[in-house]
This record gives sequence, C-alpha cells and structure tokens, in this order.
Amino acid sequence: MTIEIATKQQVEDLIAKYDYFLFDCDGVIWLGDHLLPSVPETLALLKKHNKQIIFVTNNSTKSRNDYLTKFEKLGIPGITKDEVFGSSYASAVYVDKILKLPKDKKVWVLGEKGIETELKEFGYTTVGGTDPSLSTTGAFDANDKRLENLDDDVGCVVAGLLFDINYLKLSLTLQYLLKKLPFVATNIDSTFPSKGKLLIGAGSIIESVAFASGRQPDAICGKPNQSMMDSIKAAFPGLAANPSRGLMVGDRLNTDMKFGKDGGLDTLLVLTGIEKKSDGSTTYVTNKLGDLAELL
Amino acid sequence: MTIEIATKQQVEDLIAKYDYFLFDCDGVIWLGDHLLPSVPETLALLKKHNKQIIFVTNNSTKSRNDYLTKFEKLGIPGITKDEVFGSSYASAVYVDKILKLPKDKKVWVLGEKGIETELKEFGYTTVGGTDPSLSTTGAFDANDKRLENLDDDVGCVVAGLLFDINYLKLSLTLQYLLKKLPFVATNIDSTFPSKGKLLIGAGSIIESVAFASGRQPDAICGKPNQSMMDSIKAAFPGLAANPSRGLMVGDRLNTDMKFGKDGGLDTLLVLTGIEKKSDGSTTYVTNKLGDLAELL
Repeated sequence: MTIEIATKQQVEDLIAKYDYFLFDCDGVIWLGDHLLPSVPETLALLKKHNKQIIFVTNNSTKSRNDYLTKFEKLGIPGITKDEVFGSSYASAVYVDKILKLPKDKKVWVLGEKGIETELKEFGYTTVGGTDPSLSTTGAFDANDKRLENLDDDVGCVVAGLLFDINYLKLSLTLQYLLKKLPFVATNIDSTFPSKGKLLIGAGSIIESVAFASGRQPDAICGKPNQSMMDSIKAAFPGLAANPSRGLMVGDRLNTDMKFGKDGGLDTLLVLTGIEKKSDGSTTYVTNKLGDLAELL
Repeated sequence: MTIEIATKQQVEDLIAKYDYFLFDCDGVIWLGDHLLPSVPETLALLKKHNKQIIFVTNNSTKSRNDYLTKFEKLGIPGITKDEVFGSSYASAVYVDKILKLPKDKKVWVLGEKGIETELKEFGYTTVGGTDPSLSTTGAFDANDKRLENLDDDVGCVVAGLLFDINYLKLSLTLQYLLKKLPFVATNIDSTFPSKGKLLIGAGSIIESVAFASGRQPDAICGKPNQSMMDSIKAAFPGLAANPSRGLMVGDRLNTDMKFGKDGGLDTLLVLTGIEKKSDGSTTYVTNKLGDLAELL
C-alpha cells in the first residue's frame, strides 16, 4: 500500500526513517534547465538532519563535474563529486574495475563528452566520441578509409546517448562490435525527455548497433541495472549494510523505482516527470519533492 | 538435396524447367559498382530463350529508374521498369494499394531519394527524407521548433536505409510514430554490405525508432516478406498460377532464398555475395550466376 505524503507528521516520520536519500535528477530536482519548486529547501532540510544525499542519473552526456556546475548554476551549491553517480561515471568504473581493461588499451566511444571525461579520469584514451573529424553530414562515402583503418589498440566499446549521431559513427561502432570487443552500455532508456517531448534515448541508439552486430551489451551501467547500485553501496558501506535505511526518489517506475526496489531500498515516486499517477507499487508517492519542505 | 550446377546438361535442364527468373542484384548481378563475370551473357541467354527476367532488390535508396540507369551503366542495356521490383517501389505500392492513403495526405520519410521518387510517382507529397534543411550536424538544439510544429497532413511513415542520418531526423520520426500513424518499413536487413564491409542496414535504423516508440513496423516491404512477392505475382499472372515455373536467384539464405521458397519458387544460391557455402536448403547452388553462360 503506497503512502501518499500529505501531512507534517508523515514528513517527520520519513526523515527519521532513512539515512540515505538517493535522487534521480531530471523530473525530480529539475526539468531540463528549470529547477522544480522548493527543491533547495528540501535538500537543505535533509542536510540539516545530517542525511546523506546521493544523485543518481542515467544521462551519460554529462560528467560528474558537469553536474556540479549544473547544480551550482540552478542555485544548489555545495554538492560534491562523490555525491553524484552518473551512468558515464558508472561505465568508466565498469571498464576499469570489472573489465580491468589495461590502460594502454583505448576505448571506442559512441556518445558524448561525459563518457570521454569520466574515462579520461581513469587514465584511458578514448577514440570516436566527440572527435570533430567524425562529425559528418550529407552523403556517406563508402570509400571512407576510416572504415578500413580501425584502431587495433581499441579494447572496449562504450555506447550511450549521442546527439551528433551519423552513419559513419554508427558504422564504425559496428566494425568494433564485430571484432567481439566488450560492449558497455551507459543505460538503455528508450527515450530522452526534453521540453515536454520524448526524443531518441540512449537505448534506441544502442539498439541500432546491437541489432546490426547481432549482439546485446555485455553490461548496462544505468538504472535500473544494479551495477550502479553496487558502485553506490561500495562508496557508502552504511547503505550496503542496511539498504532499508535508504530511500530512492524518482519519477519513473521502470527505472528509478525498480532500481531502488531491486537494491532493497524504499521508494518515493514524484509526479513532476514521466509518471502522472501512482500505480501503488512504491513505498510513498507525492506530487513533487518540494512537498517535503513545504509540509514542514 | 541441393543440386550443384557443374555440367552443360544441368544448365539446359534448368533453363527448360523455368519461365520466370528472379534475381537479387547486389552479390548476384554486381558487387557494389562492379559487374560480376559473365552476367550479361547469362541474362542474354535467358532472354534468347524467351524467359521473363525480374530483378528484386531490398535497397531502398534507389528508385526503379535509378536501377535502369545502373544496369545501363554497367553494360546491361534493355532492362525495363516493369522488370525491376525494389523495396522503395514495393513500399509505395503498399501505401497506395493496401493502406489506400488519400493523395492529400503526406508521407513522412526516414530514408533516401529512392523512397521519395517512388511515392511521388504515385502522387504523394513527401516530407522529411532528403530535405536539405534537416541535414544537421553537431550539437542538437532541444528548442528546435520543428519538433513542436509537426505537419498535421502527414498520414503515414515510411522508413528505410538512410545515409544522412541524424538525431533530429530520428526524433522527428519518433514524434510521428507516437501519433500512431501507419509505420511502413522498406526492409529489415540488419546490415548493408559495402566494399567488403558490413555497414548499418535499413533494419538497424528502423530498429532504433521502433524501440524508441515501442512499436514494430505494420508492414515490411522487402524480401523475405511476401508482400513483395504478391506484387510480383500480381504483375506476372503466369507466375502466380504456377510458382514452380519460377526460380529465385540470390546470395543470402535468410532473405533471397527464404523469399523464393516461401513464395513457392525453386531457389538457386550463388556464392558471390554473403554466403560462402551451401547449407543444403536450396534447390541449386553454383559459384556465380555467370556459370550458366560459361557452362553452355
């Protein structure tokens, strides 16, 4: 039975019950470039009660540093890098800690700057990605020498959301996938919500090269996949020891809420993003995150 | 038991047994821009025996007229438009004859000129496709007004192979698919063979917008789908009445050979394209189509 947050007492009980507050960002903290109402007050309230705040985002176009800049710009100062878990960071952790890819191997990136930045922080050289020489338009040249001259040092493929997508980048990614290199997906969200529209998501780009190569990603590093939860628990042993002291706050049932539930956390659905009503499967539901501060 | 064509007698028997010779083009007649050996002689031989020749191709980037130009240029003159069945033409036939889309409705095209040309021949206006204003590169503008201002006259989506693919075109296609308009795929080949490489095929582009929209195409107009065979049989009633008088020649087991077999035709696999050996499932196998002329 989902509890609908409506009273001051409920908020006080909720704050007392959890030590770790995990937040999806888009649709919870902000909508695109607009901060949602009473969010800074709610975060300040949790910090005042010495709660650990953790941001968990599937958007791989940004690095953790990019997120800090965004928090600052929207009027939420004081967030630190170790409070932010993005799928680009989680993918870099996977390449380094799980795949143990040697540092002299390169990573082919089908994606944006966020992935490149996080991989570079782990000491990897990336190819593909935002390389301007690959930013082509118009007719495709079947004689393009880059399709012949693959980089033999590439030891892994990381794929995520990519706005500057083109036939050359997709076909080059296919060549590396056909070489049976490890295939890491940042996340598989089928759509990317933007300005009230659903645009092409990372999952729909990855689906294209997956279908072409006849392969599925070896790892998916975004919600609801638990490899990201494992990274978070590794960073916060208290949460690992007692997941029921954690609350996952999100706007999507099939990613955020599933992610929390699968990790043993309680869940709070907010209705400022994708979902417009509760389906009764979460621990709590409230119209917006800011209700917590407003009800107190 | 597959018959391996090796003697003059076998060729004579084969020519006597069939009235309709259906050919896949790439990997059978030509490889990219190179005519395969003894192909003109083989086609001339069949014509001399008053056989009906029919070319069946999944490549939707070309119209039937484009194919006539290509045949001419490669040294195979005298082919007529009614001997060529392409997936772009088959898609236009589907929109007109099966969907019966009114002519004042427009068609949104995710694809190349071939699709636009064939739809225009049926009297339709196309949007999207090769419109140069949609040929963007670099950063994607989330405020792009074209995502808001969809064309309400669009009544159908046709998707196929597209070299000038970008995030805007994919996301615009998604908007029309979310409107539940009929969704026609030219073909679903996962890869596009070019210069000895496997590049991204129509099916892998279509898979991306299908995954994003949570839909599958309502119709697939290329081999091995039988809607193309139905078009061919409608044009050649003799083949419809007696499919066993037809022979489908191709280089791919899962498209060409399946297409022929499902349509009740016998099949001849050639090894100049995708397949490098027989799997015993076709009626005949030979190294190359030109063997027919060379053995006589």
